[in-house]
Amino acid sequence: MAPMDDTHYMRLAIAEAKAARDEDEVPVGAVVVCNGKVIAKTHNQTQRLHDVTAHAEMLAVTAAAIWLGGKYLTDCTIYVTVEPCPMCAGALGWAQVGKLVYGTDDPKRGYAHIAPAALHPKTEVVCGVLSDECSALVKEYFKMKRSRK
Amino acid sequence: MAPMDDTHYMRLAIAEAKAARDEDEVPVGAVVVCNGKVIAKTHNQTQRLHDVTAHAEMLAVTAAAIWLGGKYLTDCTIYVTVEPCPMCAGALGWAQVGKLVYGTDDPKRGYAHIAPAALHPKTEVVCGVLSDECSALVKEYFKMKRSRK
Repeated sequence: MAPMDDTHYMRLAIAEAKAARDEDEVPVGAVVVCNGKVIAKTHNQTQRLHDVTAHAEMLAVTAAAIWLGGKYLTDCTIYVTVEPCPMCAGALGWAQVGKLVYGTDDPKRGYAHIAPAALHPKTEVVCGVLSDECSALVKEYFKMKRSRK
Repeated sequence: MAPMDDTHYMRLAIAEAKAARDEDEVPVGAVVVCNGKVIAKTHNQTQRLHDVTAHAEMLAVTAAAIWLGGKYLTDCTIYVTVEPCPMCAGALGWAQVGKLVYGTDDPKRGYAHIAPAALHPKTEVVCGVLSDECSALVKEYFKMKRSRK
């Protein structure tokens, strides 16, 4: 069987982002893959947990480390629907994640402009995978939020 | 009774850093104070939890939010023995912490050089409180680690 491509795993991350949306959370989802196996699927839970640290990526790093029994994710790829913030990029940096694949940019809060050195220098970065779909989820969420005010 | 000063609370954070050291963790401690009351005391637990996200400040943000029943720490001061990394500064930024007081600089991993915009622009920052004591704890820890190799 051919290895799954980035699009396949990003679709799983998008499913997580939709789960967040359905819980009235900012729709961001993440998936961690290690040697072709999905070892963590998470979504943003900051509202439910009243905890700013409960971003999808943070929960994914913790969940993957539990699964692996170790704190380094050097052999893992994380798929996340939105460009990580400095907090999440810092966590991915400490975890020395092998590869980061994200969907849509976040020009205001994304790490790439604010904190590019937060990632580990060896982490491979791919961006723009299913970007329109990832972006539309976030835009629709905030549009809906504004219409409720 | 006069309000306690920054040195008083930093001593509590140092006690937490010593607790970390005694558990064979990198000795960093944090304390969150809200209206003169200590609402969280935490220390680094990355080794014990096998989790890179378990820095003292991250645990402090989560613990303080649980105590407050809300995720914003605008009326709080966090005391931490070492300059936060980008991950922790990002968490403090999302939490909109009112004031950050830290002991010793971390020129390699500290947020101030790598990710200064990770903090919220309204967060007041004080550095250098009991800096020698905070620094000595970290230096002694790594010296001990090297001598064991």
